[in-house]
Amino acid sequence: MVSLQSTGRFLIGLDIGGTKLAAVVADRDGTILQKARRPTEAARGPRLIVESLCEMVREVAGLASVRLTEVAGIGVSCGGPLDTATGIVYSPPNLPGWDGIPLKAWLEESLNIAAFVENDANAEALAEWLFGAGRGYRNVVYMTMSTGIGGGLILDGRLYRGTCDAAGEVGHITLVPNGPRCGCGKRGCLEALCSGPAIARRARELITETVPGSRFQVPGQQADRPDVQTGRPDLMVDLADGDVNAITAETVMNAARRGDATALRVVDETARYMAQGLGTLINVLNPEIIIIGTIIVKAGDLLLSPIREYLKQETWDRLYRTVQIVPAGLGDAVGDLAAIAVVRQALEGYVKR
Amino acid sequence: MVSLQSTGRFLIGLDIGGTKLAAVVADRDGTILQKARRPTEAARGPRLIVESLCEMVREVAGLASVRLTEVAGIGVSCGGPLDTATGIVYSPPNLPGWDGIPLKAWLEESLNIAAFVENDANAEALAEWLFGAGRGYRNVVYMTMSTGIGGGLILDGRLYRGTCDAAGEVGHITLVPNGPRCGCGKRGCLEALCSGPAIARRARELITETVPGSRFQVPGQQADRPDVQTGRPDLMVDLADGDVNAITAETVMNAARRGDATALRVVDETARYMAQGLGTLINVLNPEIIIIGTIIVKAGDLLLSPIREYLKQETWDRLYRTVQIVPAGLGDAVGDLAAIAVVRQALEGYVKR
Repeated sequence: MVSLQSTGRFLIGLDIGGTKLAAVVADRDGTILQKARRPTEAARGPRLIVESLCEMVREVAGLASVRLTEVAGIGVSCGGPLDTATGIVYSPPNLPGWDGIPLKAWLEESLNIAAFVENDANAEALAEWLFGAGRGYRNVVYMTMSTGIGGGLILDGRLYRGTCDAAGEVGHITLVPNGPRCGCGKRGCLEALCSGPAIARRARELITETVPGSRFQVPGQQADRPDVQTGRPDLMVDLADGDVNAITAETVMNAARRGDATALRVVDETARYMAQGLGTLINVLNPEIIIIGTIIVKAGDLLLSPIREYLKQETWDRLYRTVQIVPAGLGDAVGDLAAIAVVRQALEGYVKR
Repeated sequence: MVSLQSTGRFLIGLDIGGTKLAAVVADRDGTILQKARRPTEAARGPRLIVESLCEMVREVAGLASVRLTEVAGIGVSCGGPLDTATGIVYSPPNLPGWDGIPLKAWLEESLNIAAFVENDANAEALAEWLFGAGRGYRNVVYMTMSTGIGGGLILDGRLYRGTCDAAGEVGHITLVPNGPRCGCGKRGCLEALCSGPAIARRARELITETVPGSRFQVPGQQADRPDVQTGRPDLMVDLADGDVNAITAETVMNAARRGDATALRVVDETARYMAQGLGTLINVLNPEIIIIGTIIVKAGDLLLSPIREYLKQETWDRLYRTVQIVPAGLGDAVGDLAAIAVVRQALEGYVKR
């Protein structure tokens, strides 16, 4: 166990994804000085990947003319489950073979710099709080909204990790008992209704099952709506080059922006489900701000406006007026800053103690 | 603003309810030395009620031979909404006319002892954590389950109040979109399905609408079940002296204990709804322990066993194994200890700072 060097002027961040590794060196304010990227090549297994990460640390430090003795600590953002106290990683779905890997210990042994391992959703929450849309707030709910829905909670001005580093699984609030099957095994989770793939699936279902006159119409249904003759219910299919299975959440948003009725219905349903989930979070956590990434960043007010409107029915006026619902502020920089935020937070905790 | 006397050996607690006022004096370990009760007579308005409370403080201190200069502080448990920083109370439903009442200031001016005002659910959460079933745990969800469903959260070893002292409204997690109307105005809240009145309402609905052969049967339905001849589906009505409207949650539990099929179905549904709500809390907060009061204390394993069973489908195995679901430990003493816990917690924060 290596101690944080609280006088170190630089921070290093490592982002371990299923397809790519990233290393960055930053100053203590979060300004990124240098970065490096490599493919993860996950099949290599954890030993070789951690060796790559250590090489990348030396590489970015060299590029920035930073000596490793000037580095306060290393922050690591990695898929969970993992144990932040021991820095051991337990079988993240995107890292096959990482079963009980002492990531913190391996990095510290190799580099002689204190390392702090955090799950990626918590690390992103820290980044948005320290450097992004959550700066200056005390009670922050951060929600990713892309392939899955995850999250992280800043409560009373610090990261709340829960009992086994598993708090903030906001994607697994149950919205609809016996609703669609979720990747987690449950049914009707927020993630099973509002993740990118779930939004696309609901759109496909509407097109193939319920839109009268659709090219994907259920046999026997009548083309009884005026807009059917124009082919507009199939705008999403057209945008997906004629392949209903190629429709994504982005297709839905694009079609909705052009006024497509089916896409607008999917957007409206998405907003209703999101408002139900956010309402539960607001009633339980009474946050000042809810920051939502990826899909909300791209969709903007197309989704945020109806979410805010439906939310009025999901909580009390006093709590509604207390909370802002905003898109994430860091965009594509969130991955790099997430790892930096992990060590910055560890450092502040260290200084305060 | 009067300062806490951190050297004071005694604590005073005030519990302000809609029908009754209570004052207790305790030592710092929470041992109650004397107590007093008076009717609230809420129509008198706040000024006279606070005067009564001050008289009660002097009365219990006198009975315990405690001088007011030996009292560290006063804890107050009161219906919310209220602001814990200023100690101002804003229109609790059970205290008509308490609109912006500076309760903390009035008590401090009159008694010259520091006073701390907390909403009753948070105060009870503190009591169960400091003196009851939650002792020694770091992440505690407390849930009342009686006329309404409220709660309080102890996270990372301290009370989490939220941004405007409104966190922990666990009764207003939405379980069923467009479900039964809740007192809060929303639909399908946990409270609208699992509070005492909601359990009783679901039982009455089952009896009057769906039980074949019931005396309250929908016309045209057939008495086609073997147990109908014995009158067993109406056991709840019998237990309520023949008045279907007199059925309470307790009637349901009593009938279920005797094996009544309809009551068992209500219990099973209640467990299913509770598990859905608790599952959401577990996935978001990853607590070590969930403590549930009143109905769960009375029903015990009749409700807790199926809740625990359904819960396995509502969260991950790792989180399920991390959390205990237990009945509250303080019973009827919770009200007195809640007020004492408020000042004890303020005192510990004071000492630590």
